Amino acid sequence: MDDGSDLAIISGSGKLPLLLKNAYKKAIDVTFTNSEKATENKVIKCQFEKLGFLFDSLKKNRIRRIVMAGAINRPQFDKGKLDQYTLSIMPTLSAKLVKGDNELLSFIADEFEKNGYQIVGASEILPSLVLKPGLICGTPYEFITRDIKKADKILKLLSAEDIGQGVVIENGLVLGIETLQGTNELLRFVAKTSSFLRKDNLGGVFVKRPKANQNLRFDMPVIGPETINLAFEAGLRGLVVSPHSVIVLEKEKCVQIAEANEFFILAEETKN
Amino acid sequence: MDDGSDLAIISGSGKLPLLLKNAYKKAIDVTFTNSEKATENKVIKCQFEKLGFLFDSLKKNRIRRIVMAGAINRPQFDKGKLDQYTLSIMPTLSAKLVKGDNELLSFIADEFEKNGYQIVGASEILPSLVLKPGLICGTPYEFITRDIKKADKILKLLSAEDIGQGVVIENGLVLGIETLQGTNELLRFVAKTSSFLRKDNLGGVFVKRPKANQNLRFDMPVIGPETINLAFEAGLRGLVVSPHSVIVLEKEKCVQIAEANEFFILAEETKN
Repeated sequence: MDDGSDLAIISGSGKLPLLLKNAYKKAIDVTFTNSEKATENKVIKCQFEKLGFLFDSLKKNRIRRIVMAGAINRPQFDKGKLDQYTLSIMPTLSAKLVKGDNELLSFIADEFEKNGYQIVGASEILPSLVLKPGLICGTPYEFITRDIKKADKILKLLSAEDIGQGVVIENGLVLGIETLQGTNELLRFVAKTSSFLRKDNLGGVFVKRPKANQNLRFDMPVIGPETINLAFEAGLRGLVVSPHSVIVLEKEKCVQIAEANEFFILAEETKN
Repeated sequence: MDDGSDLAIISGSGKLPLLLKNAYKKAIDVTFTNSEKATENKVIKCQFEKLGFLFDSLKKNRIRRIVMAGAINRPQFDKGKLDQYTLSIMPTLSAKLVKGDNELLSFIADEFEKNGYQIVGASEILPSLVLKPGLICGTPYEFITRDIKKADKILKLLSAEDIGQGVVIENGLVLGIETLQGTNELLRFVAKTSSFLRKDNLGGVFVKRPKANQNLRFDMPVIGPETINLAFEAGLRGLVVSPHSVIVLEKEKCVQIAEANEFFILAEETKN
């Protein structure tokens, strides 16, 4: 039985680390000082400046698999505190920090692999986190195919620049494009759109997908009950996600909120 | 002397219509019921449903040139009120209303031209509205070229979809992409970005340009003192606009605000 005794969960914010911890009781939890996560049993507290210490600790605990879970803020390094290992990768790391998430995370994943660890995806070890293709709940509106196509065109264009996991479209018009602030802030922004700009009042859709070059092993888009609530509060009618590649936290609760608000959730591949 | 006696100013919101009116004293001001503009001398009050009435009125007043100035909200039509002319173009107009601004405005401009009017650009008849290439004030920061290039790449990609006149970049990362809500709302959104995401605190730049396929005769990007204030409040260090093709309202006031805040304004062509 896979109890996670060779697994370390690199834990960022949100509920995903906890869900994994509950499924893999013997896994080690790795937290960074800026991740604001409560101490639990079997926790390695790590600093971004001391990645060498992290690799040593993982080795001592006979860890072989690494799963990255939850958002970790882009770190700032205190140069006085760097251990030898981190110092050695600092020139490359500094360059990656000003690139998009993909390049930064790929680099970090590569470092783990170079040190002999296998990176596993959260949804590989917990398949219930993602959706199978199909209509999960609710009823899509008449022009949904047109709006999804437009969103997908924009997402595809922006993928090349490592941005834009999410786009909000209402009646053919673009109400929001996700940037560094993430899904929730995007939806809060859309909610405040002047009613003059939305007077057809047709609702709209939030389309959320991985970027074309996003590595799903260590970086998947995540939604959850708050996303559904915010999308509904933003006057939208539904949510479209890619099946198998967007993590849905607390799926039952998501469906419950959606159904209570006549909001649809559709898992469908990109139209492009 | 061109006193504007054959000119009609289709007046939307903002200060641009007034600036044109001051320069062309004899021009006729055309306002739509949703434009919330005070009545002045020589005003034609028009309804979106009665474009036939508008063309007749312009003809009676011997208007030959039309300048479109200021934003007009995407109209909603009361089908019971349509005059014959508007009714005849309604099928095409309805289709354009769910497209981006370009298609909608091009169609409206075409209708004016079909009826014998010449569309003139605001900056054609008031050249002081735009900037010549060069540094207007302040000092760009070290990585400005890299950040402008990134913004321009995104603007170019999105141009194809008729969105994205503005992009905010900070230290290589995308903090905002302009959508239907416009520049000011974008900058207010950026201002609220969590400090965790901006901890390098390097400032950033707002790049504002016309879309690739934007028709500058009847639709130019507009900035003004509020833009400078909001960009500064969003923690940015400067603003880049395309020379000759972005309208800068109250230029002296813009420069004054920028200089007081060590904020730069640079008029420079796209890097792509």
